[in-house]
Amino acid sequence: MTGSINKRGFASDNNAGVHPVILESMAFANNGHVIAYGDDPYTESAVARMKGIFGQETGIFFVFIGTAANVLGLSSVSQPFNAVICPGTAHIHVDECGAPEKFTGCKLLAVDAPDGKLTVDLIASQMHGIGFEHHVQPRVVSITQATELGTVYTPDEIRRIADYTHANGMLLHMDGARISNAAVTLDCSFYEITGGAGVDVLSFGGTKNGMMYGEAVVFFNRALCEDFKYRRKQGMQLASKMRYIAAQFDAFLENDLWKRNALHANLMAQKLHESVRDIPGVDVTQKVESNAVFARIPAAIIPELQKHYFFYVWDEECSEVRWMCSFDTTAEDIEGFTSLLRSLL
Amino acid sequence: MTGSINKRGFASDNNAGVHPVILESMAFANNGHVIAYGDDPYTESAVARMKGIFGQETGIFFVFIGTAANVLGLSSVSQPFNAVICPGTAHIHVDECGAPEKFTGCKLLAVDAPDGKLTVDLIASQMHGIGFEHHVQPRVVSITQATELGTVYTPDEIRRIADYTHANGMLLHMDGARISNAAVTLDCSFYEITGGAGVDVLSFGGTKNGMMYGEAVVFFNRALCEDFKYRRKQGMQLASKMRYIAAQFDAFLENDLWKRNALHANLMAQKLHESVRDIPGVDVTQKVESNAVFARIPAAIIPELQKHYFFYVWDEECSEVRWMCSFDTTAEDIEGFTSLLRSLL
Amino acid sequence: MTGSINKRGFASDNNAGVHPVILESMAFANNGHVIAYGDDPYTESAVARMKGIFGQETGIFFVFIGTAANVLGLSSVSQPFNAVICPGTAHIHVDECGAPEKFTGCKLLAVDAPDGKLTVDLIASQMHGIGFEHHVQPRVVSITQATELGTVYTPDEIRRIADYTHANGMLLHMDGARISNAAVTLDCSFYEITGGAGVDVLSFGGTKNGMMYGEAVVFFNRALCEDFKYRRKQGMQLASKMRYIAAQFDAFLENDLWKRNALHANLMAQKLHESVRDIPGVDVTQKVESNAVFARIPAAIIPELQKHYFFYVWDEECSEVRWMCSFDTTAEDIEGFTSLLRSLL
Amino acid sequence: MTGSINKRGFASDNNAGVHPVILESMAFANNGHVIAYGDDPYTESAVARMKGIFGQETGIFFVFIGTAANVLGLSSVSQPFNAVICPGTAHIHVDECGAPEKFTGCKLLAVDAPDGKLTVDLIASQMHGIGFEHHVQPRVVSITQATELGTVYTPDEIRRIADYTHANGMLLHMDGARISNAAVTLDCSFYEITGGAGVDVLSFGGTKNGMMYGEAVVFFNRALCEDFKYRRKQGMQLASKMRYIAAQFDAFLENDLWKRNALHANLMAQKLHESVRDIPGVDVTQKVESNAVFARIPAAIIPELQKHYFFYVWDEECSEVRWMCSFDTTAEDIEGFTSLLRSLL
Repeated sequence: MTGSINKRGFASDNNAGVHPVILESMAFANNGHVIAYGDDPYTESAVARMKGIFGQETGIFFVFIGTAANVLGLSSVSQPFNAVICPGTAHIHVDECGAPEKFTGCKLLAVDAPDGKLTVDLIASQMHGIGFEHHVQPRVVSITQATELGTVYTPDEIRRIADYTHANGMLLHMDGARISNAAVTLDCSFYEITGGAGVDVLSFGGTKNGMMYGEAVVFFNRALCEDFKYRRKQGMQLASKMRYIAAQFDAFLENDLWKRNALHANLMAQKLHESVRDIPGVDVTQKVESNAVFARIPAAIIPELQKHYFFYVWDEECSEVRWMCSFDTTAEDIEGFTSLLRSLL
Repeated sequence: MTGSINKRGFASDNNAGVHPVILESMAFANNGHVIAYGDDPYTESAVARMKGIFGQETGIFFVFIGTAANVLGLSSVSQPFNAVICPGTAHIHVDECGAPEKFTGCKLLAVDAPDGKLTVDLIASQMHGIGFEHHVQPRVVSITQATELGTVYTPDEIRRIADYTHANGMLLHMDGARISNAAVTLDCSFYEITGGAGVDVLSFGGTKNGMMYGEAVVFFNRALCEDFKYRRKQGMQLASKMRYIAAQFDAFLENDLWKRNALHANLMAQKLHESVRDIPGVDVTQKVESNAVFARIPAAIIPELQKHYFFYVWDEECSEVRWMCSFDTTAEDIEGFTSLLRSLL
Repeated sequence: MTGSINKRGFASDNNAGVHPVILESMAFANNGHVIAYGDDPYTESAVARMKGIFGQETGIFFVFIGTAANVLGLSSVSQPFNAVICPGTAHIHVDECGAPEKFTGCKLLAVDAPDGKLTVDLIASQMHGIGFEHHVQPRVVSITQATELGTVYTPDEIRRIADYTHANGMLLHMDGARISNAAVTLDCSFYEITGGAGVDVLSFGGTKNGMMYGEAVVFFNRALCEDFKYRRKQGMQLASKMRYIAAQFDAFLENDLWKRNALHANLMAQKLHESVRDIPGVDVTQKVESNAVFARIPAAIIPELQKHYFFYVWDEECSEVRWMCSFDTTAEDIEGFTSLLRSLL
Repeated sequence: MTGSINKRGFASDNNAGVHPVILESMAFANNGHVIAYGDDPYTESAVARMKGIFGQETGIFFVFIGTAANVLGLSSVSQPFNAVICPGTAHIHVDECGAPEKFTGCKLLAVDAPDGKLTVDLIASQMHGIGFEHHVQPRVVSITQATELGTVYTPDEIRRIADYTHANGMLLHMDGARISNAAVTLDCSFYEITGGAGVDVLSFGGTKNGMMYGEAVVFFNRALCEDFKYRRKQGMQLASKMRYIAAQFDAFLENDLWKRNALHANLMAQKLHESVRDIPGVDVTQKVESNAVFARIPAAIIPELQKHYFFYVWDEECSEVRWMCSFDTTAEDIEGFTSLLRSLL
């Protein structure tokens, strides 16, 4: 493997590697024998840390990836004849290859949401056929924080959605794959934008913010997860050597590593935004509220730009691209990229 | 976390940690940006190494764990109205919380097999109702190498099962969670006891032999896995930072690390067997052909023994226990344990 | 049970009873012993009649209801990671309580289609992420003939959809719950608007046109249904006393009973349309091409109208209602209804 | 269709036709318009009759067939990680093509039971791994009354099973495909051998006792079926023209038609048993407690016997056959059959 593999870019925050402190924590956990499947002191410690953040009464479960956290979380609070209301941009709708439907049996009711954010009105537009046996019955509302378009929900926005959701006998799920980026933008604690704002089930992610693998499902009402351990095992998400996931979360949450990583990624996105927004030919399409910049650029220059920096086209039809920053994005990355972009336009 | 966590034992080969060489390989892969989801040079290298072992025409896919490798492998070669014939001791039958049924829809036809090994006669006993629409239709035979009881199949035994399986329009699946231990016992290459003996789909495991996480599904006929990438994603088993699984397999297969680890674990099991078999009150119940020793011991002494060494009771009713050795079991572990056992009897 | 149960109306063509000729045919089949599950001469006869219509090389299978015909037909030609493209008004999308998702695992990609009809452009708008493992893979296009909005596809329109569908490696499914009504409108044979126009799998319905229960799944390529008998049994749709479904289809297809029934229902819809379209306050919203009339009427008069005649509100928000005619709708029904409607406006 | 179709036999009670009184009731229901999907006076009447038998607090739901009644009943009281304990002969285990696994996700734990009857000891033998996440969790015990081997459970036997089941946090399901035959043998009311003996969910069958199609799911605790209407629809078992199922149940339960039919079938089985048990070469293998006779006869004579009378070989290996009597079996059938059997031996 040659050095050429190190082409940098803005393709995704999971193209980055693992933060060194997390890697060290994993190596530190590599110490003799412990009971497998989570009955070990590393897992105990990481769970305790999570409960310190989200509340002692929560249920905390580690799984391998975000898709699984979403799907298993949803399956715990739904029956197959239920529906999940989500924005059309939701990862569960467009990027999980139908795993939610396959595993839960539920239908996803996806609503157009230009900025990736649900509102009470958008949710209400899907509340048809309640009590009518021919229709799937809405049971869960799912929002993503930060959204797949890089925007964030304020605590008040979440609270309004939660209140409507609960008033209609439903539960609120949050896909928190990039929750760290949202928290630093809002200058909120994790709790303020989850359980504290009415979220019932959370997928808490770390892989896009410096971890290697591992995600947590957080239930804010323990009655919702009494049988989750069986669902996790049957869902093929119970790690035998659990300690290495736990050790990552421990390091992630200790000394605000998560915050430093997310602050950096967001700052780089701001910097990128500032550098490109005034370049003629670049049209930024979404608010830059986390670590992503979305923009329309001339289709003709995309291939050349991609030769030097990884990134994805988000929407072929309107030549919209996505540039993600990560915990290890450097000022040089941005300068190099911006300068190339400028030269191509 | 106190030092007391380092209680050693014989509970399972996944209570051990990660081999240092594998951890180093993961750290080495932590180098800048690469494309996520497996389109990276680490994965390319590990797949090439696997193809060097199993054949250039094979399909190789990494997943997180053995249960997933089994379930997704089975789902690729079956329809929901099919049945999978397996021994009653199979991990897919007793230790995967119904994941095979849930995910594939298939029924498992589990046959009593006192030594954990299927035979042509045992398989034939399940071949009822072929073509009869009221019955599930047998489509896959699943064997485990080494078995859950520590025994191994010779290449000839596998070949006989494969021939019968294929002659009856079925496919042969192998759960190779401990395939390294079987290979060193038989002094065979991996290929001789898999594709070379007629296996169609293999779960190739490393976690019980010094890896952290990650398993491979190997298809010996690429037509069987044309759509496997979708099944893996929908099955919640596509790692974003795939390079860290690949790096483990690279190290595992390089310089015969897998063999050194398995030889050691097997040797320790032989040593343990030799040390306990003549102790009055100890009745070894299975041939010791890999890294496990099964024995009946007086129920009364089990709690005291477990206070000092981790291990599991296999069958409460007849007071049968399982002692597993691993790549890091030491001669001192065995001496200490044996000496305690002797003193209790 | 009082006489008051005989309130008539326009709620649905399945509020009507069973045509007397069909009931007689069922009674005629009630004759001694025959082998259960379809291996009987009545089933043989009905299947032969169906093959006479659809082609000798077709596969013909009877099930209980239309939802099952749709779901089992779709399950035969898809894998769980596939998607089914359909209009947003499709019965499979809005009226089957998620049975397609639950049973097949597939996602439904529902496209807005104001007249209930898909077009090549609408289908093309869903062809994203082909070959990309994060996305479900479109595999089936499903159209309804006549549509849920009472409109029909011409043979040419079906052929264009079929050609596009096949050119993109997909298959064409038709929900023919009201196919008789479409056939008489178009003055076509069943074959011309199904297999002859490129349809691969058809749900052929009779219950909305004078039968008691029973629907047929028709495969125009027998390779698609080699294992359908197992899917039907596992799908809980194999009737033990199959002869009584067969006897219904026999009578339905003999002497063009299906055609006489459908002609009558369509004629009644035309008559209803003519009677209401010029009443001020009535706004007909869809072309009347089969046995349904859709109209917006003032919300205030709906409850009084429903007191005397059954019918359903189709869209609360715009006060749109659906009036269905059936094989037993009478001129008096229409006159009485129209006169009441007129008096209320 | 020629008269030759009327070959009679002992193959199955669903090879018989429909009792004339039931057919008349269906014709009587063929009267004008009623609301579809069960909101009609015929369904109201049949449900009221069922509640008169089983209790006012029960939940009563009609479906098409017994397999569906079983599967949907089980799905209502289980989660996918649960297990259903049943005898190895259970219809749900051997004759439903894996529908229970496919639809519920559960594993069936099938226990050898030579007379087709579970006992507390047999159930207890499957109670392993409770609370252990690697194992499926037993949640339902399923018994068949009368059993697939023609034997019956006494109310006391059911009560003992129910008590054990409930004491272990499980629920008791009964497959009552032939419950009428059991009730007349035991001279019990339906309630005494179901809810009155501790059954929680019942599949109440009529098709094997003179009905055309239709089965009822009876929940003895309404909390168990709060969402059953959605499961039924999603399970493809909601009949649009429900009145024709209801009309059958009405006639079946009125004037003890069910009892007269079952008494006759049982009497014919007794008569058949008496006629054959002393014929040398005939070895009756099960107690004749309902409408079935099981016997071993020389394999060589089976084909000739089957030429004249339908019946099935139950177990090829030991040449065991099953002879079922039905409501329309005649003394002549038995005399003719016995005489042929005698002549062949």
